[in-house]
Amino acid sequence: MHIGKSYRISEFIAWTKRDIYLLVVMGVVPVVLYQMADLKWLGIPWTVVALLGTATAFIVGFKNSQTYSRIWEARQVWGDILSSSRAWGVTSRDYLKSAEKAKELIYRHLAWLAAMRYQMREPRPWESSHKTNNIRYSRLYCIPEKETTLEAELAKYLSCEELKEVLLAQNKATYLMSTQGKALKELFAKEEMVVSQFIDMEKVLRDFFLLQGRSERIKDFPYPRQFATINRIFVKLFCLLLPFGLLREFDKLNESLTGIMKGNMVWLVVPFSVLLSWIYTSLEQVGDSTECPFEGSPNDVPISQMCRTAEIDLREMLGETELPPPLEPKNSIVL
Amino acid sequence: MHIGKSYRISEFIAWTKRDIYLLVVMGVVPVVLYQMADLKWLGIPWTVVALLGTATAFIVGFKNSQTYSRIWEARQVWGDILSSSRAWGVTSRDYLKSAEKAKELIYRHLAWLAAMRYQMREPRPWESSHKTNNIRYSRLYCIPEKETTLEAELAKYLSCEELKEVLLAQNKATYLMSTQGKALKELFAKEEMVVSQFIDMEKVLRDFFLLQGRSERIKDFPYPRQFATINRIFVKLFCLLLPFGLLREFDKLNESLTGIMKGNMVWLVVPFSVLLSWIYTSLEQVGDSTECPFEGSPNDVPISQMCRTAEIDLREMLGETELPPPLEPKNSIVL
Amino acid sequence: MHIGKSYRISEFIAWTKRDIYLLVVMGVVPVVLYQMADLKWLGIPWTVVALLGTATAFIVGFKNSQTYSRIWEARQVWGDILSSSRAWGVTSRDYLKSAEKAKELIYRHLAWLAAMRYQMREPRPWESSHKTNNIRYSRLYCIPEKETTLEAELAKYLSCEELKEVLLAQNKATYLMSTQGKALKELFAKEEMVVSQFIDMEKVLRDFFLLQGRSERIKDFPYPRQFATINRIFVKLFCLLLPFGLLREFDKLNESLTGIMKGNMVWLVVPFSVLLSWIYTSLEQVGDSTECPFEGSPNDVPISQMCRTAEIDLREMLGETELPPPLEPKNSIVL
Amino acid sequence: MHIGKSYRISEFIAWTKRDIYLLVVMGVVPVVLYQMADLKWLGIPWTVVALLGTATAFIVGFKNSQTYSRIWEARQVWGDILSSSRAWGVTSRDYLKSAEKAKELIYRHLAWLAAMRYQMREPRPWESSHKTNNIRYSRLYCIPEKETTLEAELAKYLSCEELKEVLLAQNKATYLMSTQGKALKELFAKEEMVVSQFIDMEKVLRDFFLLQGRSERIKDFPYPRQFATINRIFVKLFCLLLPFGLLREFDKLNESLTGIMKGNMVWLVVPFSVLLSWIYTSLEQVGDSTECPFEGSPNDVPISQMCRTAEIDLREMLGETELPPPLEPKNSIVL
Amino acid sequence: MHIGKSYRISEFIAWTKRDIYLLVVMGVVPVVLYQMADLKWLGIPWTVVALLGTATAFIVGFKNSQTYSRIWEARQVWGDILSSSRAWGVTSRDYLKSAEKAKELIYRHLAWLAAMRYQMREPRPWESSHKTNNIRYSRLYCIPEKETTLEAELAKYLSCEELKEVLLAQNKATYLMSTQGKALKELFAKEEMVVSQFIDMEKVLRDFFLLQGRSERIKDFPYPRQFATINRIFVKLFCLLLPFGLLREFDKLNESLTGIMKGNMVWLVVPFSVLLSWIYTSLEQVGDSTECPFEGSPNDVPISQMCRTAEIDLREMLGETELPPPLEPKNSIVL
Repeated sequence: MHIGKSYRISEFIAWTKRDIYLLVVMGVVPVVLYQMADLKWLGIPWTVVALLGTATAFIVGFKNSQTYSRIWEARQVWGDILSSSRAWGVTSRDYLKSAEKAKELIYRHLAWLAAMRYQMREPRPWESSHKTNNIRYSRLYCIPEKETTLEAELAKYLSCEELKEVLLAQNKATYLMSTQGKALKELFAKEEMVVSQFIDMEKVLRDFFLLQGRSERIKDFPYPRQFATINRIFVKLFCLLLPFGLLREFDKLNESLTGIMKGNMVWLVVPFSVLLSWIYTSLEQVGDSTECPFEGSPNDVPISQMCRTAEIDLREMLGETELPPPLEPKNSIVL
Repeated sequence: MHIGKSYRISEFIAWTKRDIYLLVVMGVVPVVLYQMADLKWLGIPWTVVALLGTATAFIVGFKNSQTYSRIWEARQVWGDILSSSRAWGVTSRDYLKSAEKAKELIYRHLAWLAAMRYQMREPRPWESSHKTNNIRYSRLYCIPEKETTLEAELAKYLSCEELKEVLLAQNKATYLMSTQGKALKELFAKEEMVVSQFIDMEKVLRDFFLLQGRSERIKDFPYPRQFATINRIFVKLFCLLLPFGLLREFDKLNESLTGIMKGNMVWLVVPFSVLLSWIYTSLEQVGDSTECPFEGSPNDVPISQMCRTAEIDLREMLGETELPPPLEPKNSIVL
Repeated sequence: MHIGKSYRISEFIAWTKRDIYLLVVMGVVPVVLYQMADLKWLGIPWTVVALLGTATAFIVGFKNSQTYSRIWEARQVWGDILSSSRAWGVTSRDYLKSAEKAKELIYRHLAWLAAMRYQMREPRPWESSHKTNNIRYSRLYCIPEKETTLEAELAKYLSCEELKEVLLAQNKATYLMSTQGKALKELFAKEEMVVSQFIDMEKVLRDFFLLQGRSERIKDFPYPRQFATINRIFVKLFCLLLPFGLLREFDKLNESLTGIMKGNMVWLVVPFSVLLSWIYTSLEQVGDSTECPFEGSPNDVPISQMCRTAEIDLREMLGETELPPPLEPKNSIVL
Repeated sequence: MHIGKSYRISEFIAWTKRDIYLLVVMGVVPVVLYQMADLKWLGIPWTVVALLGTATAFIVGFKNSQTYSRIWEARQVWGDILSSSRAWGVTSRDYLKSAEKAKELIYRHLAWLAAMRYQMREPRPWESSHKTNNIRYSRLYCIPEKETTLEAELAKYLSCEELKEVLLAQNKATYLMSTQGKALKELFAKEEMVVSQFIDMEKVLRDFFLLQGRSERIKDFPYPRQFATINRIFVKLFCLLLPFGLLREFDKLNESLTGIMKGNMVWLVVPFSVLLSWIYTSLEQVGDSTECPFEGSPNDVPISQMCRTAEIDLREMLGETELPPPLEPKNSIVL
Repeated sequence: MHIGKSYRISEFIAWTKRDIYLLVVMGVVPVVLYQMADLKWLGIPWTVVALLGTATAFIVGFKNSQTYSRIWEARQVWGDILSSSRAWGVTSRDYLKSAEKAKELIYRHLAWLAAMRYQMREPRPWESSHKTNNIRYSRLYCIPEKETTLEAELAKYLSCEELKEVLLAQNKATYLMSTQGKALKELFAKEEMVVSQFIDMEKVLRDFFLLQGRSERIKDFPYPRQFATINRIFVKLFCLLLPFGLLREFDKLNESLTGIMKGNMVWLVVPFSVLLSWIYTSLEQVGDSTECPFEGSPNDVPISQMCRTAEIDLREMLGETELPPPLEPKNSIVL
């Protein structure tokens, strides 16, 4: 997440550099053909482009509103994970007679949080963080999950044997939650709590399964590819046709001119078609970079930071005093 | 679900091939009449078409936003089914004294999942997977529910007698859930669990009934036919009128031309009307193919894969080691 | 609910026949005055009509999106009623010691379902099923609540005395649910179940009250009349002004024509204004017919069919074998 | 709530009379200046107005969609209050051993409903029911909360002492709910119910606090004033500029005319600018009158009627037979 | 929150003064260059600006609809905090045997409310309350959290030792909730309540954690910066290009004029471009000032007032009579 006031326009232009080059080419070619090669018939009616432009604005607007919903839902899910983690800490501490056992439950929960965030950062084919535009940008901030291994993180919270078992499991987060269940069963058997407390904690476990499932859903079910595809086709077509539609609009202006610009107005098609196209491709790129809120892009939901917050809060509840520091943003970006 | 980066444009064109042929015909006829038969009065004012075009964009946009909601809700329901299945596994194992009985409850749950996915794949009259466009495409991927029978699947999880009874039931999923209830009653009677645990598990059953009902709702209540119908009429009318509206727009351009294209600009109506119409019909087709998220199309919610995931997770919880492999995509498509 | 592929265009035209007649008149009059009476000043600028057209598209789009939400919510509520009914069956059977008592609870629930669907089918002043367009159409399908009386339906599930009392109640569904509560109190007093089971079932009753309230809300709170009114005014004004706005657009085309159509292009205003207006009035009519999802129109939520499904499922749970058949659609329509 | 088919157009015009007068003046002045004072430069380009018109349509559409959400949510909250009231009646009767005590709880609940509806009808500065347009209209229907005092209503349900205390409380509804809690505590102390029933009823109380809070939220948090303000500015600016933008559009038509209208087309600006502006101001006024669903306007959520329904249902549950009649609409309006 | 009828237009203009100055400059420069320096080629085609204008309206509309959702959700969360606080008061009083202990729980809850509102008022880099426009305005109202310190507020509710500990905690609200949990554990150990009441109160604590988390989410997760950035670019570009697009539209009008305005129509570009641009920038500014509902701006959710209401209600429940007065608005603004 970018936590500054806003991106600077220069950052934005740098980020969309590759598109701009392409758009310039797409703008220059028709003008050269029209003006130098005198292919006047290349100038198509503006009405065609205007209709396409409105439809494209609809489509791109729809996509952005859906990607916004995705990131917002992702933040909701993780906000609830953070809140429920705090609640788990309080409940574990209050229900169990032994503080030691409560600590075990809380540490295993921290392990679950770590497993979750590593799982969320795994790459998917439809994510855009591997695009050239984004790779270049990614050097400016750091992704905690790329810097230490999951094993090292889990080792902080789990005993040696449990760690080994977890690492073998297909879905580590599910495995850890399932182990929490087993632990509760044992604690109940040892009369650490009464049956209604046991049932209450099992319900909380079920809620964590739901939260995990929701997070996995956003990770694993992208903005449907059929919509993404038609979106891309719309925008590309629009950018392609726009300069052709502008040719005559600018050419007409020559009539009423005198002086040096007379006859040369068509060259203005290049900057204006680039400008308008760039607006649409940038909008598309903003959508793309928001679509997958866990891919490790600067627009991600800051799950690493939130897990750290949960860790601090939970260990403070246990009365620990050597707490890790909150995650700090780098270049205004924190993940 | 398509799990690649996106559909290739060539795939997209192939998928909409039939519409393209039709649109070409619809574009050529008016041009020939106008240009060759000299029926100049066929050129209608652009304003009529522009107004229709805007209204159509509204309507198609509305449909797509609703079909998107449908697929997203379908994924939510199945995401919750997956999460709740994991929770069911943990709860069954933790509450029951006997591991054998827990396994029975969990296996019957797997049977319910199988019954659900077979029920979801049954065809409905309004689904579009039987359209020629889609049948051709469907050879590229596989639908697990078409490859083995429900009976074979259920046999893996149920005893012989129970299997027979289930196959006779009107709604197999309901029957299986009802059997779970009976089993819980018996387990409670045998003092496998205390009354508050029994009540808690009955509540979970009720939640499964709600999830089943939501899934059935999306299956059985299509995008309302009255909306679908008017949608189709809008798009068809627009595609029909578009070339007529473009005739004069392109004809006017002849005035300012010289050279070979002079007098022939009207022929450009064909590619441009096909292009614009194709955008609209493709948008419509994308909507159609998203509308029914369980019909066995490449854009389905991957319920077979999710049921497999649930199976792996639940059997891992039971300590089984011979687990089935996750379902793999074929040509980037997994169902 | 229409359960076919879609309405045929001919059905659609037949359904909107009355509007079409009116629109033809509204199109012919201005053309005759303009062309024959030579009142050229009747041709108003297209800009006025275009602005109105866009605003109208907004407004009609908004209405349709709200009516869609209404029908979708209605289906959700009834989907949840169906699921919760199944759950009620399982819970009643599992909690009670006596199968006889469980049957009583389940049969009274079926009576509640019947009361609900009869209550939902009662006419309201704002519903459109009494419009001539719709009455003619309504002969093609059947409304089960019009064919048998509520008394006959309730008699299947209730004892004679209870039936009498129910028929006297102001709100029959509320009365039946309240009787369920009394029955639970008695069953608890007779130690048919323990207190936590009693409390659990009372909670389920409360959920049924909420579902009933939601269904009544959709029935009794129409799309607000102030919105409906301004909507109608917009559409009527648009249809009225459209032909006037088209007069000059078509008249201008005469200049560039030769041959028989020269001077007669204005007559084309009639088909095109009818076409465009028809699109808007049809959209409006589709909205109207979706607005009230329980009025007995072909676009209703199929509550009779869903109650039948519930009946079959619940009686199957009781082990009954003489089950009623599912409700069949007539002319592709099932209510 | 208006419960008829729809408002008549004449009612609508009467309701917006004041705006119409103003709009006529705003239309006549520019025409007179342009035509009579020959200030031709007052005719501004249509493009300016068209751009403003589209943006205004967006903004007004957004407002109406939000005000619609507000009234719909208000109806949901009160629908849930009604349903939960019925549930409260059943639960009170079923849990308590003494019918007398149950009656007390139910009567205090009716007092709470009365306190709620009086609180909801209190005026707020941003409500529009004090506008001249609306005051005139308000003589056609009746607001029950204006006809009897809260004290008289509460006296029906509460003992003398309790009534006195309630009237002193800052927030009467909160006070009454808090008294319900005290009564439950006492009933539990007197062993009228067991602890799990006591807890269950406290939970229901908490739900009533939430419902009360939601209703208060809609009452006390208007459509944000900053949005309302910019909305009004948009609409006013549009209405102001519209006639100026139309001047030249109509003036141009003179060229092609002969006869009496030649040179006088500009006068048509008056009716058309009034018509278009009226559409926008009416839309705005419909939004305003929907914004505050409890202000006592004809478009209110009918909370008085719903409270009466609750009273009838609850007293029928207590076996009472002298029930008050349902609230009847007056001139198709019921509050 | 502004609680008057609406902002006055003069207030609005004062608030947007700085933008207006800038827009005037941006309007004057092109006109001077076009008219005085005779750079006629600066007049670009209107079509370019119209397309950009429509797209900008989309984007700004989308932003405003999202910021509206944010403030509405913020109000929902705090409405639920208020309602749940009342419920906490009732539950604490009803469940505990000792009134003294209940008071302790309730006072600690008031401390939590105070900690929450101070936390919500902390500045964030993306908030706009530090902008010059807003600082000037902020002198007109008062922010309670700026007038007394958190320490002073907490001291009203907590013992000396507890106060010290709280002030050391990283997240004070979390710490206080965690202390509530500890207190409940102790009360249960001292048999002040039975286990099911203890569990019920722990559940309520968990709900408070969720509400806290939701409030923090809205505070800490701004409208995504990538969207905010592209929004700003759109609006700025539009305002920059608008006067260039208007030049020729107004210049054309000169042809048909006579008299003093002939040749000077281009000067009208200044007021009209300022007017239209101002509409867009104001809309943007309204969005900005709504985006962060806890920043201390006049459009904030009134959390200080709501906390005061909660305090009055809770202390009234405890039977206290020296209640603080409700927070009063200053210049129609209350926070």
